[in-house]
Amino acid sequence: MADSERKIVEEVSGVSELAKELQDLASTMISKSTHEEQSIRQRAIALGSNIRKLHSSIASAVQNGVIDRKNAEKLDEELYRAECLLNDGDVASFLPVKQHGGFLWMFLGPICVRAKKDVQLKVKEEYNSYRDRTAFMFLLFPSALLLLRAFVWNGCLPTLPVQLYQAWLLFLYTSLALRENILRVNGSDIRAWWIYHHYCAMVMALVSLTWEIKGQPDCSQKQRGVQLFLQWAIMQGVAMLLQNRYQRQRLYTRIALGKAKRMDVVWGETAGVDGQLLLLCPILFILQGFEAYVGLLLLNTAMVGVVSEWQVIVCGILLVLMAVGNFANTVQTLMAKSRFKAKMKKSKSKQELEGSPKDTRS
Amino acid sequence: MADSERKIVEEVSGVSELAKELQDLASTMISKSTHEEQSIRQRAIALGSNIRKLHSSIASAVQNGVIDRKNAEKLDEELYRAECLLNDGDVASFLPVKQHGGFLWMFLGPICVRAKKDVQLKVKEEYNSYRDRTAFMFLLFPSALLLLRAFVWNGCLPTLPVQLYQAWLLFLYTSLALRENILRVNGSDIRAWWIYHHYCAMVMALVSLTWEIKGQPDCSQKQRGVQLFLQWAIMQGVAMLLQNRYQRQRLYTRIALGKAKRMDVVWGETAGVDGQLLLLCPILFILQGFEAYVGLLLLNTAMVGVVSEWQVIVCGILLVLMAVGNFANTVQTLMAKSRFKAKMKKSKSKQELEGSPKDTRS
Repeated sequence: MADSERKIVEEVSGVSELAKELQDLASTMISKSTHEEQSIRQRAIALGSNIRKLHSSIASAVQNGVIDRKNAEKLDEELYRAECLLNDGDVASFLPVKQHGGFLWMFLGPICVRAKKDVQLKVKEEYNSYRDRTAFMFLLFPSALLLLRAFVWNGCLPTLPVQLYQAWLLFLYTSLALRENILRVNGSDIRAWWIYHHYCAMVMALVSLTWEIKGQPDCSQKQRGVQLFLQWAIMQGVAMLLQNRYQRQRLYTRIALGKAKRMDVVWGETAGVDGQLLLLCPILFILQGFEAYVGLLLLNTAMVGVVSEWQVIVCGILLVLMAVGNFANTVQTLMAKSRFKAKMKKSKSKQELEGSPKDTRS
Repeated sequence: MADSERKIVEEVSGVSELAKELQDLASTMISKSTHEEQSIRQRAIALGSNIRKLHSSIASAVQNGVIDRKNAEKLDEELYRAECLLNDGDVASFLPVKQHGGFLWMFLGPICVRAKKDVQLKVKEEYNSYRDRTAFMFLLFPSALLLLRAFVWNGCLPTLPVQLYQAWLLFLYTSLALRENILRVNGSDIRAWWIYHHYCAMVMALVSLTWEIKGQPDCSQKQRGVQLFLQWAIMQGVAMLLQNRYQRQRLYTRIALGKAKRMDVVWGETAGVDGQLLLLCPILFILQGFEAYVGLLLLNTAMVGVVSEWQVIVCGILLVLMAVGNFANTVQTLMAKSRFKAKMKKSKSKQELEGSPKDTRS
C-alpha cells in the first residue's frame, strides 16, 4: 500500500470516527436537554396552578375580612409579576405549546410554529411591517382602480384588473390569517374575532372572484356594488395606516412601561394613543357603518333583482356580519381600555403615595 | 397580622421567589444549550466539508493510479455512511436551517418551520396520509360532478358545484405547496419541480375560478374543456391512489434497508415498487399525454373562437407546461432509478462475494 493511499485510508477512518463521536454527542445532548426542559416545564406548570390558587385564596380572605383590600391588591400585584415572569420570560419557551387550531393544521399539517424567544420578536416585527406594507397596498390598489375607471375606462371597470385585486385580497387575507394564528401560538393576545374576521374576508374574496363583473351597457348601475366596495377599501387603507402608526407607538410605550408583553398585538380596529383615539374612533365607526351600508346595498340589489347571483347575497351577508362583529369588538376593547385606565389611575396615585417599585423584573 | 394572613403573605413571597428561580434556571439552560448547539454545529460543518474534500482526493487518487477502483469504492462508501450519520442522525437537528424560500415567507413570514426529529417523522407521516385523503377526494369530486351531469343535470354543469370544486383545488394546491416547502426545510429531498408544479396548479385553479361556466344553449360544446379536465382529474386521482400505496411500501422498504432517509418524499409521478412500475409508468405517461391534450384543446378552443376569454388561453398554456415538466421529470427519475439499480446490483454481487456488512448504522 502506497503512502498516499495509507494516508487517505487513515483520514477516511478518522472522519468516520468523528462522525460517530459527533452523533453520540448530539444524541446525549438532545436527551439531556429534553430531560431538563421537561423538569422546568413541570415546575412551571405547578407554579402556575399555585399562583391561580393563591389568587382565589386571597379573594376569599378579603371576603372573610382576614386581609384588607389594600394588602390584597399588593399581594395580587406580586403574584401578577410572578405570572409575567413565567409567561413572558425565558421559562415561556418551555411551557407546553398552545394547541394550534384547525386553520393552521389545514394548511400546514402538524408542524410546530412555536418560535424561539429571539425569533418571536422578529416574527412580531415582521407582522407589523407586513401590515404597514399591506395598508399601503390597500390604499393604492382601489384608488388606482377608481381613478382609471373615471379617467381611462369611461366609468366602466374591466374584469381583469378587478379580479387581480380580488385575488390579491384572497392571498392577503389568507396570509394574515396564517400569520395571526402563528402569533397566537407564540403567545400573542390577539382577539379571536380579528382572526375570524379574516376568515370571513377570505370567503368574501373567494366568492367575489367567481362573481362576474358586469360590463356595458349600463355598467355604472351594475357596478355600483363593486364601486362602493372599492371606496370602502380606500377608507380602510387610511384607517389601517393611522392605526398601524399609533398602535406601534402605543405598544412601544406600553413595553417601555412594562405593561405589555412583547407579543401583544393590538390588531384591528381597536385604538391608538389616547390623543389619537379621538381621531381614530370616529373613523373606525364610520368605516364599520359604511361596511354595513355596502353589505345592505348588495343585499338590496339582489332583492330588487338588478343582479340576482348568489354571490351578491353571500357578500352582502358577510359584509354586514363583519361590520357588526367589528363594531361589537371595538366597543368591547374601548370599554376594557377605560376600565384599565381607571385602574391604572388608581394604582398610579397609590404608587405615588407608597413609592412602590415600577419595574417588574428584578 | 392574623395567622392566616401571614400564611398567605409567606406563600405569595415563596411563589415569587420560585418564579425568579425558575426564570434564572431557564435562562441559564437556554444560554448553555445554545452554546453547546453552536459547537456541535461548527464541528458538523467542518466535518461535512472534510468529507467532501476526501471524496475528491479519492477521485484524483484513482485517476493517478494511487488507489485502485475497488478500494476507492469502499472508501467512498465509508464516507457516504459518515455523511448519512451527519445528515440524517441526531446531528442533523443542529445543522443550519436551509433558508426557506419566498413561498413560505410570503404566507407565513419569518417563522421557522424546522421540526424536531420526532416531529419530523410525524410531519412526514401526516403528509402521506394527507395525500391519501387528497387522492380519494381527487377521485370522488370530479366523478360526482360528471355523474350528476350525466344523470341529473341533463348534460350541463351548473356553475356553483364546479366553482366549489375549483375553490377546493385552490386550497388543496396551496396547502400541498406549503407542506412540501415545509418538508423541504426539514430535509426532504423532494424534487423542486413537484413544488413548481403545484404553483402552476394553484395559478390554474385561481384562474379557472374567474372563468365563467357557460350554460345553455349548446353547453355540451362550451363545457367540453371543463368536462375533459374533470376526466383528467379522475385519472389523476386513480394514479395518485396507486402511487401513494406503492410509494409508501417502497419508502418503508428503503428505510428498512437503510437506503432512504426518513424524510425522503417520492412525490409525484415518479415510480413505485419494481413490479408496479410496469403498471404505473404507462398510466403516468398516459396521464401526461392527456394533460397536454386537454391543454392543447383549450388553446384550440380559444383560437377557433368558441370561447375567447383569456382564462382559456392561460389554463391551456399552464396545462401544456405542466404536462411537459411532469414528463421530463418522470423520465429523469426513471433514469436515475435505473442507474441506481445498476449500481446496487453491482455492489450487491460484490457484497455477496466479500460478505461486507449491510447495515450502515453501527
